[in-house]
Amino acid sequence: MALEGELSNLHNPVAELICVGTELLLGDILNTNAQFIAQELAHLGITHHYQTVVGDNPARLQQVIEVASRRANLLILSGGLGPTPDDLTTETLAETFHVPLVKHPDIEADIQQKFSAIGRIPSPSNFKQALLPEGAQVLPNPTGTAPGCIWSPKANVLIMTFPGVPHELKTMWFATAAPYLRQAKGLDSSQFVSRTLHFFGIGESSLAESIAPLLASQNPTLATYAGDGLVKVRITAKANSEQQAWDLIAPVEKQLRLMHPQTCFGADAQTLASVVSDALISRKETLAVAESCTGGGLGSLLTEQPGSSVFFQGGIIAYHNSIKSHLLQVDPAVLSEQGAVSGIVAEQMAQGVCRQCDSTWGISITGIAGPAGGSDDKPVGLVYIGLAHHEGWQQHWECRWGAQRSRSRIRSVSVLKALDVLRLFLLKNE
Amino acid sequence: MALEGELSNLHNPVAELICVGTELLLGDILNTNAQFIAQELAHLGITHHYQTVVGDNPARLQQVIEVASRRANLLILSGGLGPTPDDLTTETLAETFHVPLVKHPDIEADIQQKFSAIGRIPSPSNFKQALLPEGAQVLPNPTGTAPGCIWSPKANVLIMTFPGVPHELKTMWFATAAPYLRQAKGLDSSQFVSRTLHFFGIGESSLAESIAPLLASQNPTLATYAGDGLVKVRITAKANSEQQAWDLIAPVEKQLRLMHPQTCFGADAQTLASVVSDALISRKETLAVAESCTGGGLGSLLTEQPGSSVFFQGGIIAYHNSIKSHLLQVDPAVLSEQGAVSGIVAEQMAQGVCRQCDSTWGISITGIAGPAGGSDDKPVGLVYIGLAHHEGWQQHWECRWGAQRSRSRIRSVSVLKALDVLRLFLLKNE
Repeated sequence: MALEGELSNLHNPVAELICVGTELLLGDILNTNAQFIAQELAHLGITHHYQTVVGDNPARLQQVIEVASRRANLLILSGGLGPTPDDLTTETLAETFHVPLVKHPDIEADIQQKFSAIGRIPSPSNFKQALLPEGAQVLPNPTGTAPGCIWSPKANVLIMTFPGVPHELKTMWFATAAPYLRQAKGLDSSQFVSRTLHFFGIGESSLAESIAPLLASQNPTLATYAGDGLVKVRITAKANSEQQAWDLIAPVEKQLRLMHPQTCFGADAQTLASVVSDALISRKETLAVAESCTGGGLGSLLTEQPGSSVFFQGGIIAYHNSIKSHLLQVDPAVLSEQGAVSGIVAEQMAQGVCRQCDSTWGISITGIAGPAGGSDDKPVGLVYIGLAHHEGWQQHWECRWGAQRSRSRIRSVSVLKALDVLRLFLLKNE
Repeated sequence: MALEGELSNLHNPVAELICVGTELLLGDILNTNAQFIAQELAHLGITHHYQTVVGDNPARLQQVIEVASRRANLLILSGGLGPTPDDLTTETLAETFHVPLVKHPDIEADIQQKFSAIGRIPSPSNFKQALLPEGAQVLPNPTGTAPGCIWSPKANVLIMTFPGVPHELKTMWFATAAPYLRQAKGLDSSQFVSRTLHFFGIGESSLAESIAPLLASQNPTLATYAGDGLVKVRITAKANSEQQAWDLIAPVEKQLRLMHPQTCFGADAQTLASVVSDALISRKETLAVAESCTGGGLGSLLTEQPGSSVFFQGGIIAYHNSIKSHLLQVDPAVLSEQGAVSGIVAEQMAQGVCRQCDSTWGISITGIAGPAGGSDDKPVGLVYIGLAHHEGWQQHWECRWGAQRSRSRIRSVSVLKALDVLRLFLLKNE
């Protein structure tokens, strides 16, 4: 279904996102729609400065629409299009801009047909969805009964409504809204592209300080983010063509990588696990894991990606010391003298798993994830990573993550560190 | 660290949520903080009408704070507390309410100590986090360096700030903010309590239909949620005392459990892993795991909880078939005749790991997680769970999760199914 004519040329479009639904205020659902639309707007190069969540309350929704229409000219609303009495988005929009609702027979017919197809009879309330503000066009909903609308209530203002059901919203976005916006943006042909670089082993503040002059750049812009033990730098450029935008990004990316050759491990969709996997696959080498305090987390992460059986042999979860000595052949004397959390045990675990699983590399993790089990000598957060090569070489790394970190953080960052140790080793010996 | 005195008695608290961060506007991250705080406010019986997301822009943030402080008296801000120049929440709050920032030596010392513990040196920008608006108290951050604040800039207005990192925000919420709010709510003596029952092995719609009359109840109210292969029913009661509220919940909880004695596996903080752990610990029995397609995910989940070494011995990640035969002693003839994804191999894997790890129980998972590797005979989503007892008993279960499910869903639901198989077995043989 094509939209008739062109409603509006948006000059300097600035979007604002309004998500309607009391279930969002109660925390019953996660607002994945906001993230989806935000990503899509970024792709289209349309700026947005605010997102608002408001409940199924027409007076508050009206106030939010009024505020948003003063500071933006592209209002995107999700939710509140259903058949129940608390679905009031369409009515409230009409009221805010003082226009009546108009019945659309084509929508009525569509609702009737969709209900027939599943052998059900629509209730009168379903036909409420056939009403749109006067002057609005239908934004078709191929996979549900609640259509949205595209409406320009006044010059250089465009409103789009979507149901709150994520998969319906996405289908409508890709089928109609995105192509429409690409066209309606009219004269502004700017293209935005961005690249995200990933770092491990450096804190966000140290990284930000080291690249402070670049962070002040206007085009491309740079921003740092931290989370889950990793730091990201996103480089975003705007230009008249996609190629020109990439050309702005390239020298900055190169500079960042040169400044942090060890800690910058990849870009965009790459992860520590994918980088290590790719390196092993291209070297035709295999890996096995011996895990104590991470209990299988490293193996689980390595096998998240399809095709990991090409390089991943398997491993041994040596939670109990008896398994360290019996299955990994760690020397019982060493175990009792040095303790399970020690560099030499980490090395022997890595050697043992390499042998038992007949792999090129063996990697091990042994440590104290807490919250109990720490001592002055060996505090919570002390973790050893062992790496062994099947030809007889082995080494270990000591990590002190700090006792204030949670068990779950200590475990997850230890898994990342183990991957990083192997990555750096493969990098050095390319 | 206890908060000194009481800052403010909030009369008729109405909260508003402000999430700060350009990464939210770019769609780089999902706003899980908004859902978490929304749920927590609902638990506390504190209404909130609006949530706003705004970027790292002080002028826009200031405008959002001003609007929010006119329509709410409890402002909860997340994000923008980091050390980098674009983290401006604290500064903007101080400016909005015309007060200077004051340095807190105790925060400085805490930052210094946290960096020392991990062997790093704080950069000057880290100490920016020791500045709070005059009159604000520290909202301690036990697991990170950016503390928040609790601040009453004027009568009957309370502001709380949190870093954007979800696990830090949650820790701070439970440790300090929630108890504080419970007390500060002051005069409102209505008590809300709620219990969440967890279900595995039943769909949300089937469950909802089976309990339809209960879902219409007004006090307690019931709501169902689905996610990650599990279904939850939340029962919430309101009364003049906590005890009265619990008394309203008790008969409804009992009825739900009686209606679903197999699928209802626990309540509130209980998980399938914690229920199985508790059962094994009380029986003084031990467990070992043999994992193929889940690659260590079951072991990782079982060891998430502190103290799992009491019952968890360890396991073998038998990703490659050679490890199934070599380390788990699966009969090579059976492997080649029946294939690695078969009931008998699942049983032999469970028996093998039970023997190798000297445990009471062995549990195994072998299957096709996809997206490749399926056939007509053995489609993606076909998974076998094996269970063995060290005295020689074994059994297997066949699961067909369907090829339309993602690799990650097939893996995670298989891990849950393995736990559930053991749970039901232990339940039957109590």
